Amino acid sequence: MKLRIITSNPGKATEFRRALGGMGFEIEHADEDCDEIQADTLQEVVRSCMSQLRPLALGDFALDDSGLFIDALGGFPGVYSSYAFSTIGIEGILRLMDGDEERSARFECCIGCSFRGEEFTVEGRCDGAIALRPAGAGGFGFDPIFIPSGYEKTFAEMSIDVKNGISHRGRAIQALSGTLKGKV
Amino acid sequence: MKLRIITSNPGKATEFRRALGGMGFEIEHADEDCDEIQADTLQEVVRSCMSQLRPLALGDFALDDSGLFIDALGGFPGVYSSYAFSTIGIEGILRLMDGDEERSARFECCIGCSFRGEEFTVEGRCDGAIALRPAGAGGFGFDPIFIPSGYEKTFAEMSIDVKNGISHRGRAIQALSGTLKGKV
Repeated sequence: MKLRIITSNPGKATEFRRALGGMGFEIEHADEDCDEIQADTLQEVVRSCMSQLRPLALGDFALDDSGLFIDALGGFPGVYSSYAFSTIGIEGILRLMDGDEERSARFECCIGCSFRGEEFTVEGRCDGAIALRPAGAGGFGFDPIFIPSGYEKTFAEMSIDVKNGISHRGRAIQALSGTLKGKV
Repeated sequence: MKLRIITSNPGKATEFRRALGGMGFEIEHADEDCDEIQADTLQEVVRSCMSQLRPLALGDFALDDSGLFIDALGGFPGVYSSYAFSTIGIEGILRLMDGDEERSARFECCIGCSFRGEEFTVEGRCDGAIALRPAGAGGFGFDPIFIPSGYEKTFAEMSIDVKNGISHRGRAIQALSGTLKGKV
């Protein structure tokens, strides 16, 4: 069984391969363009991308979108996390939260999957808090300022295996794996 | 000649009517849904919306998208201005710029028009600076912190007529008017 992972980031395909390879899936990386819409939820973005890819007849495929939602900022940067990262960056987020005692946040990931003609989404989330200052050199994006609940390190200070075990994307991939198990 | 203005804001249709009514256009307000894409430029967002509306056979129509681009923030909030306004708001922008001496910014507006089967876009911009604190109760969005070049008042402190004469949207509508004059 082949499952195409649609992403511009080959590292993501590797993460899917680790989780789904054991189930007999051959994971293939594909870089197809999709216009991400401006929406309030990751589900809407993912559903829209799936509709755009449908006419391409790619066979079975999966794609994901993730975001960091900060409670004190009304959910900002949320669906627009990668844009916020490339403009105001980590320093901008810390400035926005300067003096905020309420630092709760969550990373969310939504995976959309088209499998044997059926389309579905699964979600994963990781609750945590925004650190007072960045720490760690691993991961990417806002990882250096996100401390998952129950830990005292940021995502960027963790080994990739520890992070993948608890991260929003790791959990969404686990949910995908569970859903696919019921279908093969 | 009828021209439909596609917007969720009836006030915008009024602004088009003032500028184009004298040319014999009957301006009609229409509220059609369009998924705004995540893009770097207003032009891309507007072009995408026009493609989505094309199959609806609306006759001649125009739509616009606007954004505030702040140089010191790498162009943030740009295409995502309305999202930034509803989450971090004016206070968030001022926090992000705290201590920045470089306060230059611009409002941009892009209008897309489908007229007699031809599609084109026109642009308007208004250069200015981000105020140190909000002032004025007029306008909407980030108007209270935007001081257009050559003035000492924010958009929100100006009368609607003065603002429309120099604003990004006012200038884009003037450009639309000039382009349509060459086609009727």
